[in-house]
Amino acid sequence: MPRAVAGPEIERLIQLLARVPGLGPRSARRAALHLIKKREQLMGPLASAFEDVLGKIATCRVCGNIDVRDPCSICTDVTRDPNLLIVVADVSDLWALERAGALNARYHVLGGTLSPLDGIGPDDLNLASLIARAHDGTVQEVLLALGATVDGQTTAHYITELLRDCGVRVTRLAHGVPVGGELEYLDEGTLSAAIKSRTSL
Amino acid sequence: MPRAVAGPEIERLIQLLARVPGLGPRSARRAALHLIKKREQLMGPLASAFEDVLGKIATCRVCGNIDVRDPCSICTDVTRDPNLLIVVADVSDLWALERAGALNARYHVLGGTLSPLDGIGPDDLNLASLIARAHDGTVQEVLLALGATVDGQTTAHYITELLRDCGVRVTRLAHGVPVGGELEYLDEGTLSAAIKSRTSL
Repeated sequence: MPRAVAGPEIERLIQLLARVPGLGPRSARRAALHLIKKREQLMGPLASAFEDVLGKIATCRVCGNIDVRDPCSICTDVTRDPNLLIVVADVSDLWALERAGALNARYHVLGGTLSPLDGIGPDDLNLASLIARAHDGTVQEVLLALGATVDGQTTAHYITELLRDCGVRVTRLAHGVPVGGELEYLDEGTLSAAIKSRTSL
Repeated sequence: MPRAVAGPEIERLIQLLARVPGLGPRSARRAALHLIKKREQLMGPLASAFEDVLGKIATCRVCGNIDVRDPCSICTDVTRDPNLLIVVADVSDLWALERAGALNARYHVLGGTLSPLDGIGPDDLNLASLIARAHDGTVQEVLLALGATVDGQTTAHYITELLRDCGVRVTRLAHGVPVGGELEYLDEGTLSAAIKSRTSL
């Protein structure tokens, strides 16, 4: 426990900031000092942004997304393709796909991946409502946008089996060389997958 | 400008978090999501810590430190040695010295260093009150705890001249090998200084 260098209010602020991902104990002090110095331009607005979000945040009852409205703004967006449902493990994956902006579809957030080692089984994931949505007659394709990890692939196989009889096409993201990636730094598994899935020019 | 992935309240939160030192646009998203998920354990307490600090924060009229009281808790701490005054450029330096815990003295925060290139002259620093404090009859030593940079050393020389006639001893921090430092990674200036100031065993 480092020695307290300021009043208890500032020390408490530093301790809370140190728990924000991306900030450690040292950068929390730097962040606290910056926030204090920029209290009118940054700390005040951040405090009111917190209050705004705290009062309104909800988990979407349809897809499991986090938003300030329920159902979320994606589920209620009528311009999105209702035929395609993208399954993601976490809201952070949904955000990443939205930033890529490659698809204008709806999502289904599982809330994790199957992980026997961590004690996460099918009942811990948002699967019942996924099956219901896949059966609703509108969805034609379920894209499993899960990580290329053991847990991600296990979950993808499990969901593929679950959805086998409901008449929707189940797809997964392609494996291959990341855009901007150098071959010499890639692992063998990725290179093998990229060779296997090679395309004509 | 990346595409908005959530409601305007969450996007505003992400944009404000991205301005906190240590967080970039990408880690701000991760931090925002973590804060939202841990809203009761982390975002709520952080919001109230902000409110606490915002309402009370002040710059100490005596030393220039930032605290929730004025004069600050260091200036009003009667257990501190009144004979030694440590001059620092910024509150972050004061915090660093307090963490080291090597001295139990009072401070004087300049609010920067002389920097002709950045247009920072003597009038921009907290110097008048430093001269007054050095003349108060109690202070016997002024330790210039300034960085070993061109600006830090320029400032140290300037203050040494300012305090020449007031009868206090003016000292600076030692130069040398940082504790835990490997010789092969040190620059020539540091090594030369360490050799010059070598001590007997």
